[in-house]
Amino acid sequence: MSFNSFGHLFRFTTWGESHGPAIGCVVDGVPPRIPLSEADIQPWLDRRRPGQSRFTTQRREPDQVRILSGLFDGQTTGTPISLLIENEDQRSKDYSEIKDRFRPGHADYTYWAKYGIRDYRGGGRSSARETASRVAAGAVARKVLDHVLGKSAVIRGALVQMGPHAIDRTRWDWAAVEENPFWCPDAAMVATWETHLDGVRKGGSSTGAVIEVVASGLPAGLGAPIYGKLDADLAAAMMGINAVKGVEIGAGFAAASLSGEENADEMRMQDGRVTFLSNNAGGILGGISTGQDIVVRFAVKPTSSIPTPRHSVTKDGENVEVATKGRHDPCVGIRAVPVGEAMLAIVLADHLLRHRGQCG
Amino acid sequence: MSFNSFGHLFRFTTWGESHGPAIGCVVDGVPPRIPLSEADIQPWLDRRRPGQSRFTTQRREPDQVRILSGLFDGQTTGTPISLLIENEDQRSKDYSEIKDRFRPGHADYTYWAKYGIRDYRGGGRSSARETASRVAAGAVARKVLDHVLGKSAVIRGALVQMGPHAIDRTRWDWAAVEENPFWCPDAAMVATWETHLDGVRKGGSSTGAVIEVVASGLPAGLGAPIYGKLDADLAAAMMGINAVKGVEIGAGFAAASLSGEENADEMRMQDGRVTFLSNNAGGILGGISTGQDIVVRFAVKPTSSIPTPRHSVTKDGENVEVATKGRHDPCVGIRAVPVGEAMLAIVLADHLLRHRGQCG
Amino acid sequence: MSFNSFGHLFRFTTWGESHGPAIGCVVDGVPPRIPLSEADIQPWLDRRRPGQSRFTTQRREPDQVRILSGLFDGQTTGTPISLLIENEDQRSKDYSEIKDRFRPGHADYTYWAKYGIRDYRGGGRSSARETASRVAAGAVARKVLDHVLGKSAVIRGALVQMGPHAIDRTRWDWAAVEENPFWCPDAAMVATWETHLDGVRKGGSSTGAVIEVVASGLPAGLGAPIYGKLDADLAAAMMGINAVKGVEIGAGFAAASLSGEENADEMRMQDGRVTFLSNNAGGILGGISTGQDIVVRFAVKPTSSIPTPRHSVTKDGENVEVATKGRHDPCVGIRAVPVGEAMLAIVLADHLLRHRGQCG
Amino acid sequence: MSFNSFGHLFRFTTWGESHGPAIGCVVDGVPPRIPLSEADIQPWLDRRRPGQSRFTTQRREPDQVRILSGLFDGQTTGTPISLLIENEDQRSKDYSEIKDRFRPGHADYTYWAKYGIRDYRGGGRSSARETASRVAAGAVARKVLDHVLGKSAVIRGALVQMGPHAIDRTRWDWAAVEENPFWCPDAAMVATWETHLDGVRKGGSSTGAVIEVVASGLPAGLGAPIYGKLDADLAAAMMGINAVKGVEIGAGFAAASLSGEENADEMRMQDGRVTFLSNNAGGILGGISTGQDIVVRFAVKPTSSIPTPRHSVTKDGENVEVATKGRHDPCVGIRAVPVGEAMLAIVLADHLLRHRGQCG
Repeated sequence: MSFNSFGHLFRFTTWGESHGPAIGCVVDGVPPRIPLSEADIQPWLDRRRPGQSRFTTQRREPDQVRILSGLFDGQTTGTPISLLIENEDQRSKDYSEIKDRFRPGHADYTYWAKYGIRDYRGGGRSSARETASRVAAGAVARKVLDHVLGKSAVIRGALVQMGPHAIDRTRWDWAAVEENPFWCPDAAMVATWETHLDGVRKGGSSTGAVIEVVASGLPAGLGAPIYGKLDADLAAAMMGINAVKGVEIGAGFAAASLSGEENADEMRMQDGRVTFLSNNAGGILGGISTGQDIVVRFAVKPTSSIPTPRHSVTKDGENVEVATKGRHDPCVGIRAVPVGEAMLAIVLADHLLRHRGQCG
Repeated sequence: MSFNSFGHLFRFTTWGESHGPAIGCVVDGVPPRIPLSEADIQPWLDRRRPGQSRFTTQRREPDQVRILSGLFDGQTTGTPISLLIENEDQRSKDYSEIKDRFRPGHADYTYWAKYGIRDYRGGGRSSARETASRVAAGAVARKVLDHVLGKSAVIRGALVQMGPHAIDRTRWDWAAVEENPFWCPDAAMVATWETHLDGVRKGGSSTGAVIEVVASGLPAGLGAPIYGKLDADLAAAMMGINAVKGVEIGAGFAAASLSGEENADEMRMQDGRVTFLSNNAGGILGGISTGQDIVVRFAVKPTSSIPTPRHSVTKDGENVEVATKGRHDPCVGIRAVPVGEAMLAIVLADHLLRHRGQCG
Repeated sequence: MSFNSFGHLFRFTTWGESHGPAIGCVVDGVPPRIPLSEADIQPWLDRRRPGQSRFTTQRREPDQVRILSGLFDGQTTGTPISLLIENEDQRSKDYSEIKDRFRPGHADYTYWAKYGIRDYRGGGRSSARETASRVAAGAVARKVLDHVLGKSAVIRGALVQMGPHAIDRTRWDWAAVEENPFWCPDAAMVATWETHLDGVRKGGSSTGAVIEVVASGLPAGLGAPIYGKLDADLAAAMMGINAVKGVEIGAGFAAASLSGEENADEMRMQDGRVTFLSNNAGGILGGISTGQDIVVRFAVKPTSSIPTPRHSVTKDGENVEVATKGRHDPCVGIRAVPVGEAMLAIVLADHLLRHRGQCG
Repeated sequence: MSFNSFGHLFRFTTWGESHGPAIGCVVDGVPPRIPLSEADIQPWLDRRRPGQSRFTTQRREPDQVRILSGLFDGQTTGTPISLLIENEDQRSKDYSEIKDRFRPGHADYTYWAKYGIRDYRGGGRSSARETASRVAAGAVARKVLDHVLGKSAVIRGALVQMGPHAIDRTRWDWAAVEENPFWCPDAAMVATWETHLDGVRKGGSSTGAVIEVVASGLPAGLGAPIYGKLDADLAAAMMGINAVKGVEIGAGFAAASLSGEENADEMRMQDGRVTFLSNNAGGILGGISTGQDIVVRFAVKPTSSIPTPRHSVTKDGENVEVATKGRHDPCVGIRAVPVGEAMLAIVLADHLLRHRGQCG
């Protein structure tokens, strides 16, 4: 048990606050002799990095990762890999006025209720800045998957809904995802989201989103029932990302409205292999992967930091109004896409090693 | 790490298959000197027990629990509590014809892919019968909550959607939940569900559901960020229940469509206490409880065992049709209500002890 | 984390008290498709069983094990294996007079100090009866080792010292171990121990012992530095056995008196393989197995239950004399031999699976 | 489960190699609002630091610790505390000649056998340099004990045997420990050890040692039977320290030679409290603390790095002679004293929080 670790055989432990000197993580359990360098991790951090378009926070963090341990001659040694990212653009003054007041929708009140002390600078430990460590660990997890599976696995994500505007799934194009600032797979939706987000930002508001992450090329058999189920671990992984309020696998909540005939994915032999004729299961049955695409969606609430004043209270029990200034994402869901991908890779790497341990 | 254990300080380990001699669990970490007997557990098992109306499976299991350890003079001793439930109405012959074929929607294929062997009798380990152990452990968790919190906590659940038919939340009445065979809190919806379910059953089909479980009277401060978040643990707990495909907290997926102003629950002092003016957060911010109701919903897919034939394959790679005979719930979501309550109680008991350990 | 579980990938959880209806354990993480039946476990339990000579307790327990889950068609399925042993010859009346008084050397006082309640019948949870569960789990661990390693591993133990009488190691003969009631590998020592133990028993006293357990045929590479070292896990495994007060690996405490030249086991190539010219390391360097014999010794204190009266106190703070009647082993170390073997097998099975998980 | 983490509620994860840029650890589970700064940690590191007398390695490391997270306004916040120590005096060239050869007594061969790759510079991950992280974490653990127990606990250690020269325990004087370079509690022994160690060093050899660490002022009730026993966790903690080959509690191995009457510590009421008349148990019965001094001893083998040539082999299977040059401690046991103290503090802090979690 550890409060700040995730995973079992592939396991990472994160530390650091938004406005401390640095953040980082220790990645443990990595198989030996995997070629690894900062260059394998940095591109994934760059995808999550703020300040890359007018649609994300203007905080400027280079998010340059350093590997402090666990490598020799450019390869993993099986020992823990310590990753460190310095905080640079901290501007702590931005936050002094929320020192004694609890921002609605934030963890300010709950950290204070739990610990009796809180680092109010940028949200401290509860800041989404911590997700950079997840992305860094996720990059290592991808290397583990490639090493064990021979590069068969592809893990990617997309924004499938912003505010009330959901994409048209029939227009899904993975290539489009890389061509707009929203990771939107439906090119025809991009203009709508731009207009929506500009309106939100100018109105001093924020908006939520739904992210879908997909893993292809994974074998059947990953997942450890009953209490190490692949879907249960994925649910924890995604629900634990900042601002996430819902997680679903495959058909998800829509499955409740399906009939038994519609929902149960039929099987046929094709080219000598078991093939499913649909994927309502999202690639997981009984907590174990089916070999189909693993499909996970999660809902991100609107950014709680908004310029529009909201009712709140202070530590000393006074009623106040809180209007959050500073630099914030109007839709944190956008930057949650690479974070969701990372968590998916991490869960799969862990389960791959666990499966190998038990079943060979 | 354990594949078949759940929780940390309050922790249970389950074992057993649908058609073995018995199922059971070991509940560990229970505080000492809590009065406990079978009579504290049996009523919760009775709520989950099959065969109580025409709307659930006709398998007749008394589900009589025996406590084999951990008690002395009617009190817990702090040592592990072993709970055992014998399987009685097994009828293994019902299942012989699915020995070599994979039932669509079931874990048949994945267990076989993972382990190369499977107990096909009633789903073996993947049977929903295992959830009786969860309910038994949940009954112990309720005693722990009562013991530590002085009976302030109330944990209950309801079915809020069956198939396409969602309740009208403005008619929510907790008293109604106990007065119909569906745990429906909207009395006006009961007739609709009866009609729907009779139709489903007669049509050889099945239907899904959405369950909502709510914990009231819990203190603020439960949950251990970043990787022991209360919502992440709840997501794992619920997603790990058989047939669950989605989990959400508070506003859940609907939060994606809210504006920042709508979503962030405002606070005001009332009677000298911090009070929230809404509960989109579902009682959890930053992974820590706020002291409001903790609200979790989860979607259950339609029962995969249906009489209508479906395409499938055999172990030997032949295409076949599978029509499941035997005794099955047309809507497994109904019996998932007490299971969801139990998992909620378990997660909360664990977090209560973990919080006490770290923070006193 | 669990208070009553041991191991990680191969993991068992025990439950039960000396005078409850039964004791047992749940063994999790076992690879699938290993042939297993009660007949694989019973012989090891029979070795530990009391009442087999005049030198052990006269409590008569058949210690018949039942497998309640985890098997199908005579093979493991990868799901948890529940093992149950009923308590039969309990005679709770023997213990009524120690209800309020703390037996010196026993856990009576500490359980009461910790929990404020204790099952005083036969020591309750702290009874050495619990070790039957370890032996049962150890039998499963042996099957795992055989399955993964192709029966190369041999795990066995011996008593190497009773009271002040240590064996002459130059006379070590594994065959002798099976030919006397003490598991003594030095046939010439048996008569001395008989005389010693008869004297101890007649004098109303008890005596301690040193046990040595050895694993041969294990590969190099098992153990997970820095905090999953093979020797650290073995130390925990052995120190956790009832009445154990010391554990050493290889040369152990004697290593403190050796010179660096004497201690560091030299290496030479022999028949194309790395071979060590001595084994002061006891088969473990840096927490990882070398491929040599793994050699662990542990010291067992004299049985605390003795007829000779000893000063003690009651729950209510009165000074009293305690003389333990009832049926007790004059040297619990004898029956600790199969327990130590079992714990060695368990640690090795766990590390074998963990190693396979990380390193393939 | 994690390979490089230790503890449960109080838990630390270490990383880093002898010749990487830095080493460090993440300490998790610390209660909030404990005043903490580098000044609380540095003195303990200074005690372990090399190069302080002619009797330890001449490697010059300032071992300056930096706290990177987990504090706010000089207090712990309940979030993970990241500690970093830079490596400065690395001299990697010293080690180039052992690149392909396995030093006898070291982990060179086993790391290579396990991982197929090893960082040969200074032993890489297996270097005793890692113990600086333990000492740093131990300093935090001491603060936790002080915080929860009101400074009642005193944790200290001493060297009680060097090579064949054991102290006379009747001359034990804790004040003496601070007055010689060996942490020797028997002032009359110091000259003997100086002569012994000078001889060892000049002879190109090394020598072993036995360390005793003692915790006073701890309450009864710490320890979690059956598989979280305090003595089992202490055994793992000490056996996991580099070069340790044996661990004993209280009378330890000598208990094997005691009679039952001698061994079982009698009890009497004194000043209204339960008092033990002896402490053969070393403060632990049934895995739970008695409230007496907790006494742990461990044996450290002679330093494996010695200038005298020893037989060995290379990665490529050639027989060679290895004579270790470079800077090494002739008796690593000396610097193991503060490491043992740290591990004792860590185990106790963890158990204190675990006990509070379960039992309040």
